[in-house]
Amino acid sequence: MSKITDLLNWRYAAKKLQADKVVPQEKLEHILEAIRLSASSSGLQPYQVLVVTDAELKAKIRPVAWNQSQITDSSHLLVFAAWDNYTPERINSMFDLVNEQRGFKNEGWEAYRQKLLNWYPQRPAQENFEHAARQAYIGLGSALLAAAEQGVDATPMEGFEPEKVDQILNLAELGLKSVLLLPLGYREVEGDWLVNLKKVRRSKADFIIER
Amino acid sequence: MSKITDLLNWRYAAKKLQADKVVPQEKLEHILEAIRLSASSSGLQPYQVLVVTDAELKAKIRPVAWNQSQITDSSHLLVFAAWDNYTPERINSMFDLVNEQRGFKNEGWEAYRQKLLNWYPQRPAQENFEHAARQAYIGLGSALLAAAEQGVDATPMEGFEPEKVDQILNLAELGLKSVLLLPLGYREVEGDWLVNLKKVRRSKADFIIER
Repeated sequence: MSKITDLLNWRYAAKKLQADKVVPQEKLEHILEAIRLSASSSGLQPYQVLVVTDAELKAKIRPVAWNQSQITDSSHLLVFAAWDNYTPERINSMFDLVNEQRGFKNEGWEAYRQKLLNWYPQRPAQENFEHAARQAYIGLGSALLAAAEQGVDATPMEGFEPEKVDQILNLAELGLKSVLLLPLGYREVEGDWLVNLKKVRRSKADFIIER
Repeated sequence: MSKITDLLNWRYAAKKLQADKVVPQEKLEHILEAIRLSASSSGLQPYQVLVVTDAELKAKIRPVAWNQSQITDSSHLLVFAAWDNYTPERINSMFDLVNEQRGFKNEGWEAYRQKLLNWYPQRPAQENFEHAARQAYIGLGSALLAAAEQGVDATPMEGFEPEKVDQILNLAELGLKSVLLLPLGYREVEGDWLVNLKKVRRSKADFIIER
């Protein structure tokens, strides 16, 4: 495959997707696997990814997402939904999985579990949710590169009403809150005002500080 | 290069770095460029990346970062620092840059500028900072993949006292607040308890929800 920077230059936030072109399952799996393998704080992976293919659900989400056409034109709408809080159950579940997979208990790791158990669940839910939400953005970073590697367009969206998306997808009962939408599909060059415009980023001099 | 998922499987949060091995400038540039090219909300890139190579500064940061040895053993310590707020100046600066680089004004783009100007600066600074911080995590996602592509180890860290790091690096005067540390270097296999342990992630069934 091409270099990471080539992939980043290739991708952009497609403003119009081809309504009738479907992302093949194999490419979808690659993108989801990249998210699943992404780093997260303490390895807690405090979010889940919904893959919405149901046309009715996408049609319900579009009006609460600034009516953006990519929602309904995408073949797969990914919804990144963060844990609404850190609970002892959630923390223990991840530490238990690690022990189970590695086949042994590690003293330092167990001490770290206790540290988190004595720390996170005592914080306000909103603070924990904000922390969890940040981790989802690492997954987004991986997803955008994995999609580009597959030649799939992906448009990250924060422009939506999270409470309404949560309702449509019944996320509260899962203890989740939507933080990002990511429609997947193929750019429709006709009708996308952005496709041929230059990607603009601050210069290295304005972005990097050496100390 | 290898596939995105291969890179994600290769990388891990190295717990011990070789103290005397320096990441070559060319590899560093590639990693920084990947961050610079990363997506961000409305393209605002609301953060900067500090590249700390000064040994004294790294030595000052280590004790306020849980005394983690990678801070001082890294050849380059990246500090992701998010905008402390969205101001009209910052928003206008990015929209002006886009117009300058693309060579024309776009009516829809100008309307969007006004929308943000009438929205973000009126929100509480903390809300804006939280939003900016999330964008830095997309850059982290790219950085981890770009580092892996270069065979460079990178250990994402939230375990530090942000206010103290801000003081050490004089970030307040730049209107920035530290959100992430990312030491770069090469894993020291002897003395890294994590290097040979299995990477554990929740199963696809526990991470992905189909709707």
